[in-house]
Amino acid sequence: MLSTTWPRVLPIAAALAFSAGLAHSDDKADHPGVSPGEMAYKGAPTDAGDLTRVITPGAPDMTQAEFDMATKLYFERCAGCHGVLRKGATGKPLTPDITQERGTDFLKILINYGSPAGMPNWGTSGDFSEEQIDVMARFLQHEPPQPPEWGMAEMKETWKVLVAEKDRPKKPQHKYDIDNIFSVTLRDSGEVALIDGDSKDIIAILKTGYAVHISRASHTGRYVYTIGRDAKVDMIDMYMNPPQVVATIKIGLEARSVETSKYKGYEDKIAIAGAYWPPQYVLMDGATLEPRKIVSTRGYTVDTQEYHPEPRVAAIVASHEHPEFIVNVKETGKILLVNYSDMDALNVTTLEAARFLHDGGWDASKRYFLTAANQSDKIAVVDAKDREIEALVDVTKIPHPGRGANINDPKYGPVWVTSALGNENMTFIGTDPDKHPQYAWKVVRTLKAQGGGSLFVKTHPKSNNLWVDNTLHPDAKVSQSVAVYDINNLEGGYEVLPIAEWADVGEGPARVVQPEYNSAGDEVWFSVWNGQEQVSAIVVVDDKTRKLKKVIKDKRLITPTGKFNVYNTRKDVY
Amino acid sequence: MLSTTWPRVLPIAAALAFSAGLAHSDDKADHPGVSPGEMAYKGAPTDAGDLTRVITPGAPDMTQAEFDMATKLYFERCAGCHGVLRKGATGKPLTPDITQERGTDFLKILINYGSPAGMPNWGTSGDFSEEQIDVMARFLQHEPPQPPEWGMAEMKETWKVLVAEKDRPKKPQHKYDIDNIFSVTLRDSGEVALIDGDSKDIIAILKTGYAVHISRASHTGRYVYTIGRDAKVDMIDMYMNPPQVVATIKIGLEARSVETSKYKGYEDKIAIAGAYWPPQYVLMDGATLEPRKIVSTRGYTVDTQEYHPEPRVAAIVASHEHPEFIVNVKETGKILLVNYSDMDALNVTTLEAARFLHDGGWDASKRYFLTAANQSDKIAVVDAKDREIEALVDVTKIPHPGRGANINDPKYGPVWVTSALGNENMTFIGTDPDKHPQYAWKVVRTLKAQGGGSLFVKTHPKSNNLWVDNTLHPDAKVSQSVAVYDINNLEGGYEVLPIAEWADVGEGPARVVQPEYNSAGDEVWFSVWNGQEQVSAIVVVDDKTRKLKKVIKDKRLITPTGKFNVYNTRKDVY
Repeated sequence: MLSTTWPRVLPIAAALAFSAGLAHSDDKADHPGVSPGEMAYKGAPTDAGDLTRVITPGAPDMTQAEFDMATKLYFERCAGCHGVLRKGATGKPLTPDITQERGTDFLKILINYGSPAGMPNWGTSGDFSEEQIDVMARFLQHEPPQPPEWGMAEMKETWKVLVAEKDRPKKPQHKYDIDNIFSVTLRDSGEVALIDGDSKDIIAILKTGYAVHISRASHTGRYVYTIGRDAKVDMIDMYMNPPQVVATIKIGLEARSVETSKYKGYEDKIAIAGAYWPPQYVLMDGATLEPRKIVSTRGYTVDTQEYHPEPRVAAIVASHEHPEFIVNVKETGKILLVNYSDMDALNVTTLEAARFLHDGGWDASKRYFLTAANQSDKIAVVDAKDREIEALVDVTKIPHPGRGANINDPKYGPVWVTSALGNENMTFIGTDPDKHPQYAWKVVRTLKAQGGGSLFVKTHPKSNNLWVDNTLHPDAKVSQSVAVYDINNLEGGYEVLPIAEWADVGEGPARVVQPEYNSAGDEVWFSVWNGQEQVSAIVVVDDKTRKLKKVIKDKRLITPTGKFNVYNTRKDVY
Repeated sequence: MLSTTWPRVLPIAAALAFSAGLAHSDDKADHPGVSPGEMAYKGAPTDAGDLTRVITPGAPDMTQAEFDMATKLYFERCAGCHGVLRKGATGKPLTPDITQERGTDFLKILINYGSPAGMPNWGTSGDFSEEQIDVMARFLQHEPPQPPEWGMAEMKETWKVLVAEKDRPKKPQHKYDIDNIFSVTLRDSGEVALIDGDSKDIIAILKTGYAVHISRASHTGRYVYTIGRDAKVDMIDMYMNPPQVVATIKIGLEARSVETSKYKGYEDKIAIAGAYWPPQYVLMDGATLEPRKIVSTRGYTVDTQEYHPEPRVAAIVASHEHPEFIVNVKETGKILLVNYSDMDALNVTTLEAARFLHDGGWDASKRYFLTAANQSDKIAVVDAKDREIEALVDVTKIPHPGRGANINDPKYGPVWVTSALGNENMTFIGTDPDKHPQYAWKVVRTLKAQGGGSLFVKTHPKSNNLWVDNTLHPDAKVSQSVAVYDINNLEGGYEVLPIAEWADVGEGPARVVQPEYNSAGDEVWFSVWNGQEQVSAIVVVDDKTRKLKKVIKDKRLITPTGKFNVYNTRKDVY
């Protein structure tokens, strides 16, 4: 053991020891022999105990047993926000260079009490014991181990039907207009708030996964599905009074996407969730979340055809043209058309787009799915009807469309608009090959907004406004306001609305994020997203007058971010 | 470093260092952060050199540089026969328990001089230097490292078009009847012999991959494709005089299967090869072997839905019903219908069979593909037309059909027959759901042959004989003979023909393997497979009289095993 490099390898052994518990046991081939990957399981240390110590330069020693315990805890509770390799995502990065500088005592306090920036108080909440906090604080100063797999056994263990189908109501048990309810992510409290779009009342606050990435209404609107970054899927029955979670499952260690079937004859029947780790998607029963088929996305990149060990699943949308889900695979740059009509003969068409696929949305006709390949600075256009890539459109740096915005451009006809993380441009792409073929799949217009750091653009078919946020802009004045364009006078510049100022939330790093319309298309809602211990709010603006209509402020609205109107979500109106 | 288990981990580090050279370099996601798998590449030792030593208990120390060199050499030259994890396949197992007992000196001699059992003489042939042999002998006493990936870059590096399409003849340049040429695997010399079925002359001996597993004729018969266990594909132009290899490529480190497109309009257009390692298949241009699309098979098992890291590709056949290949994935127990009609939108249907899928063949109508799931003791029946599993038929222990044998059973109508590795049974399965629905996909008859260890059954539409070998039977008397049944009197018992005795090859462990018909269906050929330094032979039997017709003996026929008649292979006649 003369090498200075071995210590980097040690944590892998620990991970293997961890995953050994999940490994298949009847792995025999027809020829007597062991397949290569078995080494990863069976070659792992099996006598890990107090005699084995895990050593990383600069980190406090731990026993193998402690390391294994912390590994398990980390992947169960921390990986969703901090990332499976601790490189940071919703949560801060926790790589050894950072954690070793902080030291054990600092880390213990942070884990125990949490932080205003969103870190839960794992100790004072009673979730972690004192010993667990101590072990975790030391573990975080070692190199991260390889994350374990998460297959059917693990999914089944976490799958719970809380209210059986037969015990659910046959019709709504309340007077709310379900189509105008908003499901609002309360990012740091691991909850969603259901808010009545008519009265602006909070109908319910429901425990979900952490930092819910999206809420998706089923085709009928009966159910709303949420997915946390910790890969926990929760299914809310909107008929109940109040609506409540009727089924839940954890489909991996880190995830971003959930969707339900929308094709005629399959409404509400099938749910799908896509994971960042393990790299896979799972098809589930739409009424119970029972996992049916898990499909790995590990495979070859679209361009160089190199094997990639963890191509993460990004956006998923349900096709209106076929009984299919459209699944973006980020690192390989491939778009999968997953046909769910026969799960015993699952049919998948792999379209070749570009790296790295992220988010996207439908054009107004709902035939074409436009999606960002954001490190390639391209928008890929999928023809969902003919099952092919219709175009790869070059755009400016790091497009970030969310679902994008469809407007009827006075000059270019139907266009789809995306803003960008990397610059101030809003890019307009023609989407009407039938009546405006000369503009189809071309960048027809580029408008400057307030600056970069935009996450979302938004409009509504009944509105003349095009909204764009600048949530991640470094200037508070910009990140706390939104810009709005008049669709009928796009070259006339934009108006800036000081949304955070209107909310009057007091101190804190408040940022304005994600315009979302009500079902009638006459109000637009914004989140004023403040720190966990500060006041946040939702600001409702009258779309026609662009005046403040209502500030929803409630101490239960902790760190609101994404808002999903049931009607607009289930009908793909944007 | 107090653990006794760490040394098991060291070779992994070395493998990572090796694979780092193959890793992708532009692996950046849209969020700043590193994906989990990158650890495997970038966390690997980068300063491996003489200061770093690789230590495995009981093995001679080596420097990291030596270990890396041996790792590369092993995967390039040895893994095809000894397996990527050295568990043995065509070659003997080389796990540390075995190699440490043999010791460095013994191993050096074996590597230098080879062995009569089939080991090439790597030293005296000039392939390995003295230093390389010394390093390899020490390397083999360490734990095996993880095998590297093999993607498009590696394939392109090994791809050679030796004779361009435009330089190939437009019609046959010889008088041989191409349809009656046999491509014969010379297992231990890394060659195939092309033998004229009419004259029994050896037309050519061609260098190929090691231990060619199968030869497959293209639909027209113009080309013959071979695949070595070392994953080397060679493409022979049968029009040339003599026929010669016109293109070659290495599609992985270990492989078993190759096939070409047979659907109307796609004849000879597309080739496919399936690898054991990496677990993947590749679609290639049929005329040049240019690699087009690589698809990983890593994924979930059919039954428990656990992730399997290396599901190997077993048999592949070309569908006659659709522009598809039917691909058996061994460890997951899934059968893939890979539609090659649009490679930019590759469409794959995954059928759910059983573990572990191995070999198989068509029924007489060529609509149904019957394939062994040999650890499940089942035959899976694929309806290639309707793209579904038609049946899973329970059979006796470890079916090994090869391509199976189709006969018209006097009582049960069209049946498909398989023999077994695990016992003496020949199993007859009804294959005619239209006219004999009561027998379809049922075991209708079981006959006892000479014993277990059978690899192949064989018949021909024009023959009344059903042949069965017992190649792996422990009794030489059995393994050196074949049994033959009269199809019109199946219950009348079998006749035993002493094939090896007829060949009169003298000393050695000769075994009789693989009956194969000529194109007319009036001769059946057997390999008398002896040691590398002993005399082998091919014995030709007159099918009608069951008498010896010819013994083909030639010192160039080194360890003949599989024989593939062009007509029967291209037309799927068996």
